[in-house]
Amino acid sequence: MKKCIEFLDGISHKINNILQSDNFAVEVMPDYLREEVKRYPLAGGKKLRPALLAASCGILGGKPEKFLEFATAVEIWHNWTLVHDDIIDCDTFRRNQPTAHCRLAEVAATKFDLSKADAFKYGENMAILCGDLQINWAYNLIIKGQQKSKISADLTLDIIRKIQQFGAIKLISGEAVDVELAVKKLENITPAEVMKMIDGKTSALFQCSCEIGGALALGTFDDFRIQLLSDFAQALGRAFQLQDDLLGIFGDVNKFGKNIGSDLREGKPTILLLKTLQSASCEEKAFILGCIGEKDLQLSQIEEVKRIMISSDAYEFVNNEVQYYLQRAKEYLNELPENNYNDILHELLEYLVNRNK
Amino acid sequence: MKKCIEFLDGISHKINNILQSDNFAVEVMPDYLREEVKRYPLAGGKKLRPALLAASCGILGGKPEKFLEFATAVEIWHNWTLVHDDIIDCDTFRRNQPTAHCRLAEVAATKFDLSKADAFKYGENMAILCGDLQINWAYNLIIKGQQKSKISADLTLDIIRKIQQFGAIKLISGEAVDVELAVKKLENITPAEVMKMIDGKTSALFQCSCEIGGALALGTFDDFRIQLLSDFAQALGRAFQLQDDLLGIFGDVNKFGKNIGSDLREGKPTILLLKTLQSASCEEKAFILGCIGEKDLQLSQIEEVKRIMISSDAYEFVNNEVQYYLQRAKEYLNELPENNYNDILHELLEYLVNRNK
Repeated sequence: MKKCIEFLDGISHKINNILQSDNFAVEVMPDYLREEVKRYPLAGGKKLRPALLAASCGILGGKPEKFLEFATAVEIWHNWTLVHDDIIDCDTFRRNQPTAHCRLAEVAATKFDLSKADAFKYGENMAILCGDLQINWAYNLIIKGQQKSKISADLTLDIIRKIQQFGAIKLISGEAVDVELAVKKLENITPAEVMKMIDGKTSALFQCSCEIGGALALGTFDDFRIQLLSDFAQALGRAFQLQDDLLGIFGDVNKFGKNIGSDLREGKPTILLLKTLQSASCEEKAFILGCIGEKDLQLSQIEEVKRIMISSDAYEFVNNEVQYYLQRAKEYLNELPENNYNDILHELLEYLVNRNK
Repeated sequence: MKKCIEFLDGISHKINNILQSDNFAVEVMPDYLREEVKRYPLAGGKKLRPALLAASCGILGGKPEKFLEFATAVEIWHNWTLVHDDIIDCDTFRRNQPTAHCRLAEVAATKFDLSKADAFKYGENMAILCGDLQINWAYNLIIKGQQKSKISADLTLDIIRKIQQFGAIKLISGEAVDVELAVKKLENITPAEVMKMIDGKTSALFQCSCEIGGALALGTFDDFRIQLLSDFAQALGRAFQLQDDLLGIFGDVNKFGKNIGSDLREGKPTILLLKTLQSASCEEKAFILGCIGEKDLQLSQIEEVKRIMISSDAYEFVNNEVQYYLQRAKEYLNELPENNYNDILHELLEYLVNRNK
């Protein structure tokens, strides 16, 4: 694991330097909006997408150091989706800090002496604009990357097309389907729909990052190795998300704390939950549905749900899926050149999928 | 006026054709979000920004017909700002149709049997994503325009930079300042702040459209005539917006109906209102402040406010400003080549600033 952790740390450090010195937002007004545009990206996170871009570049013989602006662009892309997603989900905390709309609401409450409701609306309004700025910042970093790395303007336009295909159409559709699934009745949701959502919300930007990294190394997207990188990234995204769903209920309570059971409490339509409801007995089904929306979910209730998930074979089904996509991802990597970056991606895969098990 | 009206109609027609046939959103899910991405732009509007782009191209000897995708891009840019702005302002109608978030809320209420509050939140969530898609659509149209018109990839990247400078930084800052002004006390707002907001919210995209049109004709932004077009557009934006503020209270009630007085009712910090409050007597000031927030504002009250605005010389001040910027805009045009497109821009200026007087 050492190589991959060092690589992630190194990328984080370099991306943070670019984020700190970048002048995109320097003329943004008011000042607290300008600060908010940079706060999220600088607040932490694994910088996973930049790492995927850099390693994909390296695996095909490119020099990742030359393309840090592109790596920063995919991180900013990820960030605007978080800012808008947090408004959508009414989330209040991320990365141990208030979410963008909550922070901006705090600013407004202090600065303009607003009521709580007015400050909340103000925070949401500003956070919509914050995400809008970040979308444009990501595009701007791509243009800056071209200037600095001297790649052709044509390849730059291809990179922009790639961002639009994966980062806009697929990713935003994934978000929208997620919004829709949240209001649908669980019995009307199919596992295929959930997988489509995972492909959009998680895999699309992984794929985009890997493809761009590879294309920066080769000078073109038109190469079978770019497709291998993309397939690797899709399998990684699926394994990662399905594992996340498992950890959401089977994870170590000492590590995940209150988050254990929160998917269940919110009735999040995971494949794990849908499969369980399909195979469980009527009584078991009623028990699980009773847990949804339960504010004070007890550990004993979670234990019972875990038992049902195991006895209904849903746990095994999802676990098999995780292992299947993990295996697929490894196979794609094995078809790519063997080198230090390939080792790093193998480690990253294990690190992300088997983390905190 | 005939030339300019015909020109606007012609542009509208061509832009609508492109909007209808464009395939950007074809894979967006769910289907009602995909439809919403196109509905606003197709719902009407003067297509003013595309017309400015096309005429600015023509005035410098370019063929506007070759660059319709770029003209469509600035229209879509305008549209995403409307979609997000309508969420921010809680507006329910635009172009005689429900705003995006209201339409999407209606869809949700019917399709998922949601409560009114849940459907409203659902509509807002989807409309945030709708605007996000439209930002990317605008960028996508620029890339398509490059492919079709065969302009250089380098010029295309310059166009993207221009969009970022004016359409993102300046415009979004203008929006944000507008959000801020709405919660500030009127006595703490200066006319300079309001002008800054006008420059961002209105002039920036006019300038961007004119500069891009000119650069498409010349193959570069680096020419004094591009600056003349930009200065023309800024003066036009200021004259247009200040005139709009005058019409908001002095306009013909038969033409503007309920909208007369709505700026006053909402306490919108226009330069007209700020100047009036500066010069009015204590009693007059109290009378005007009493009208703000008044749901059933009477025509007699509006008449009294008009009287105060005139006697305090605020009306004359703003009217002089309108005439000043109108004159400046004409002077810039007069320094540009005399041709049919120059005539069209002169007419457009009169049409926009002296409309419905």
